[in-house]
Amino acid sequence: MEKLPGSEYLPGPIPPTPLDRQAQKAGQLFSGLLAMNVVFLGSAFISSMIFNQVAITLADVWILLSILKVLCLFWIIYYLLGTSQQPHAVLYRDSHAGAIWIRGKFLLLFGSCSILLNVFQIGYSTILIHCKSRVEIVFPSIGILFICTQVLHVTLLEACLFSLSHSWECGLMLTIATNLLLWLLAVTNDTLHMEIEAQLREVERRFAGKAPSQPPHWGNETALCTCPNTTICKVFQKGYILLYPFNTEYCLVCCSVLYVMWKNVGRRISHHHVPHTKPKFKLQGVVFGPLLGAVAVIIGACVFMMYQIQATSLEPTRQVFVIYYSYYIVLLPLMSVGAVIGTIIHALEKKELDTMKNPTRSLDVILLMGAALGQIGMSYFSIVALVATDPRDLLNSLILSYSVLLIFQNITQNVFVIDGLHRRRVAAAAEGKHTGQAGQLTVAVELPGEQETTPSSKQENGQTPPGKEEDTKEEQNREAYTSLSYIHTYSHLSWRRRVLREISFFLVLCNIILWVMPTFGAHPVFENGIERSFYGYSTWFVIVNFGLPLGVFYRMHSVGGLLEVYVTA
Amino acid sequence: MEKLPGSEYLPGPIPPTPLDRQAQKAGQLFSGLLAMNVVFLGSAFISSMIFNQVAITLADVWILLSILKVLCLFWIIYYLLGTSQQPHAVLYRDSHAGAIWIRGKFLLLFGSCSILLNVFQIGYSTILIHCKSRVEIVFPSIGILFICTQVLHVTLLEACLFSLSHSWECGLMLTIATNLLLWLLAVTNDTLHMEIEAQLREVERRFAGKAPSQPPHWGNETALCTCPNTTICKVFQKGYILLYPFNTEYCLVCCSVLYVMWKNVGRRISHHHVPHTKPKFKLQGVVFGPLLGAVAVIIGACVFMMYQIQATSLEPTRQVFVIYYSYYIVLLPLMSVGAVIGTIIHALEKKELDTMKNPTRSLDVILLMGAALGQIGMSYFSIVALVATDPRDLLNSLILSYSVLLIFQNITQNVFVIDGLHRRRVAAAAEGKHTGQAGQLTVAVELPGEQETTPSSKQENGQTPPGKEEDTKEEQNREAYTSLSYIHTYSHLSWRRRVLREISFFLVLCNIILWVMPTFGAHPVFENGIERSFYGYSTWFVIVNFGLPLGVFYRMHSVGGLLEVYVTA
Repeated sequence: MEKLPGSEYLPGPIPPTPLDRQAQKAGQLFSGLLAMNVVFLGSAFISSMIFNQVAITLADVWILLSILKVLCLFWIIYYLLGTSQQPHAVLYRDSHAGAIWIRGKFLLLFGSCSILLNVFQIGYSTILIHCKSRVEIVFPSIGILFICTQVLHVTLLEACLFSLSHSWECGLMLTIATNLLLWLLAVTNDTLHMEIEAQLREVERRFAGKAPSQPPHWGNETALCTCPNTTICKVFQKGYILLYPFNTEYCLVCCSVLYVMWKNVGRRISHHHVPHTKPKFKLQGVVFGPLLGAVAVIIGACVFMMYQIQATSLEPTRQVFVIYYSYYIVLLPLMSVGAVIGTIIHALEKKELDTMKNPTRSLDVILLMGAALGQIGMSYFSIVALVATDPRDLLNSLILSYSVLLIFQNITQNVFVIDGLHRRRVAAAAEGKHTGQAGQLTVAVELPGEQETTPSSKQENGQTPPGKEEDTKEEQNREAYTSLSYIHTYSHLSWRRRVLREISFFLVLCNIILWVMPTFGAHPVFENGIERSFYGYSTWFVIVNFGLPLGVFYRMHSVGGLLEVYVTA
Repeated sequence: MEKLPGSEYLPGPIPPTPLDRQAQKAGQLFSGLLAMNVVFLGSAFISSMIFNQVAITLADVWILLSILKVLCLFWIIYYLLGTSQQPHAVLYRDSHAGAIWIRGKFLLLFGSCSILLNVFQIGYSTILIHCKSRVEIVFPSIGILFICTQVLHVTLLEACLFSLSHSWECGLMLTIATNLLLWLLAVTNDTLHMEIEAQLREVERRFAGKAPSQPPHWGNETALCTCPNTTICKVFQKGYILLYPFNTEYCLVCCSVLYVMWKNVGRRISHHHVPHTKPKFKLQGVVFGPLLGAVAVIIGACVFMMYQIQATSLEPTRQVFVIYYSYYIVLLPLMSVGAVIGTIIHALEKKELDTMKNPTRSLDVILLMGAALGQIGMSYFSIVALVATDPRDLLNSLILSYSVLLIFQNITQNVFVIDGLHRRRVAAAAEGKHTGQAGQLTVAVELPGEQETTPSSKQENGQTPPGKEEDTKEEQNREAYTSLSYIHTYSHLSWRRRVLREISFFLVLCNIILWVMPTFGAHPVFENGIERSFYGYSTWFVIVNFGLPLGVFYRMHSVGGLLEVYVTA
């Protein structure tokens, strides 16, 4: 979220040598191979647990994961001790890191929730110690230690750093692999948990009386091991169910942050280091976006509460699904229209895109597109099921339009965000002018093969690299010309920038409410039962369990991207 | 397979402008989105067919695929007509295209087999026309047209071209998506086919008599629709079963070639175009590699035939599995040792790696690593199953060591090939010297940010770009120095290069036999029944059906990479 992301890329005294690049390639290759092996071994374990409960139990998987966690812990501690003792271990913040700070905040939030979840699990297992194995206390304890160290590690190093050493690539990859396996386990265990809940509800429905509430997660043991009727045990149970989705998201976010760090190992930046200006988030000049967004959030919250009360009651009606889907059918076209208008404005600006290589932004784009796949894939499966079943039914046609609109919304929003991310540097330069720094900042016109550098940062440092006088003169000429043309066009741009800000603010709020609803348990895609009966219980479960967490991650990641578009618009 | 892959990268008159890159990004984004939507829609269709045979039938999937094929056909014809009429549509061959020519040959082979397969299918359906729908004749006919046009298209344009227009990105992506869906359908239909075969064999075993041989592939209809006892019908049946794996591979290879083409759209090269020297494949100087490889191939062929005879007989014995796995257990360590020695020799050379950006090579590496995942994943699943079952049994311990060795062999070979691909330019320059061109060719020492250019090619062209005299002088000085040091070190290198050639030749032959065995139907990983009973029939089927075709593709792709290492060593 820097104003001038390129400003730290002055030609440094040590350009990367082929030997450096060689070391980087080798390091990436070997750490990647390590991660691949760990992930495959773990996946095989988890699959065996699912498909053959007798030979491989959940406890075996836990033991494997605990070993991995302990290895990761050792590595993190070793690394932190090692770097703190090296006098010349200079660590840089990645100025390209855009949505990273958002992810950092989410990491903290989700990490805290995950720790709480583990505390609840320990408490619950302690109450029922007579019928549970010790592993069920040891595993969450290691989990707490692991999450604490990891969050500390990542936030201490401010999410995205350059290190000159290659020694920690393998450690990073091991941690990524461990988190990926934890996510896989969480998804498959979430399956069990949802299954139990669904069964419970059916039992409740059938007897139309209150069956004793059962603990989630422990499969066959539930019959033997029921919670004593104390408040503390109920709190642990409810807390566990409520916090469970946060744990899933924590693993995903952790993987993405660590992956960005891994990709940055060995990238070099110079020692000309400009102190950071914190991104300024100003609300001035936007009215309709926040207003419309707030309305959407409030209505969404009402719909969500209504849905939750109805869906957990004994006889959920079709009406609640109709209300839920209608809300989406109104909201999604608005969001799509906003994104399309934003894209058109971007196109009207006729700016040159920032096509320079920017690994962190590429990662952002990849994560955005990858996360959208979950939602889009699920929607296509819904569409085929609904068209094949009976598209003329009211609820079916609602779900059908919802699915189509969701795909359209995802695609338009992605195009808008990606476009915005590629334009941010030009926009940031214009912003600098606007705030009275005219003449100091210039548009970073890109010359192929040139190092990324803006004259402004050079002037701020008062340094001119030796043998560069002529270049600088030329650049100043071009700069003057560009500045003039910019001032001329800027007055015309103003309304466009305002519209962009309104749109992105609106989209941010919409994405937040669309993130909250599935995170806290509204899963109509499973509860409406139409796709479930079409594909069969287990198949639809797998599809939903891969699609939903990715969808939630997508909304979260979109908020980061859109906030960036807002700040730099 | 060029001697000097960088020689065509002279600084051309038209460097890529930011607008170009912008157009490329936009084109890639939109065509990628198109492909994603098509793939998801098709996957949902195919999944529906698998999990809900009533609502969506195989005929529905065929109709969807036929529509896609016809769209692709129109696009290819339109494109070919369009470019042939444009006078300045200059098409370049990608000099970086390494293993591409191998893929081109395989494409032709697999394409012919796929056409034959479709002919057999049409013939078979025509014989049984009384109980089959017209779709079963129409679909293979469109298939033949599609494959012919596609192979013509790709081979005419020589597998890898640069085009300056962005209009065909969407068409390419549509074709990739169609091929991907055809692959998915082939894999799932292969499941049915294998299932039928397995069931058939069990029936045969139970009755210990000859049940009437049934046609593959048509699920429930088999009971009604049996082949009349004519030779032609039997030929169609057997031919269909034999040729089926080639079709699966054809789709995979097509996807990879088209993906390389898509990635190259918009990449620019200059008009200084050096005529191509065909790669020379000389056998001189290698003895042990071919010999050892030939022995491996001959023994492998014997083992394969023994396996096929035994496995298709009524009572397959444990003995045949023991022989099969023993062969692998002897061969795989030899291959691994070879690859490790090769990697050590590469490391001893202490050359600078060619770390310049080379999209085609990056793709080669990605395809190599990606294809290896199938085999490695399957091996890990086997390992967990075997350790959990009974690792002390003879056959189990054999399969266990086979799996571990296979993982090790895949990894070492990948490292060796990737290392070799990154060193080929330096090696090629040395090769030039060796053949009496000393002084004309030099090592292309890489300077960061410099255009890829070697003095040799400049001299050959008799051209010196204007304003480059000083650079050229400097380069000549450096060149003279490098040449001297090269001549000095070259005499020491000779034995190393010979060993590299022996190793890569040996590995090529081994990979060919390891490619032939699973392609022509040796699937002990399924037929031994150990993992199948551990994970359950359907789960193991899914794992095998994703792992096996990728494994076959990996062997094929390895042959390409290793041949390249051989030629440039």
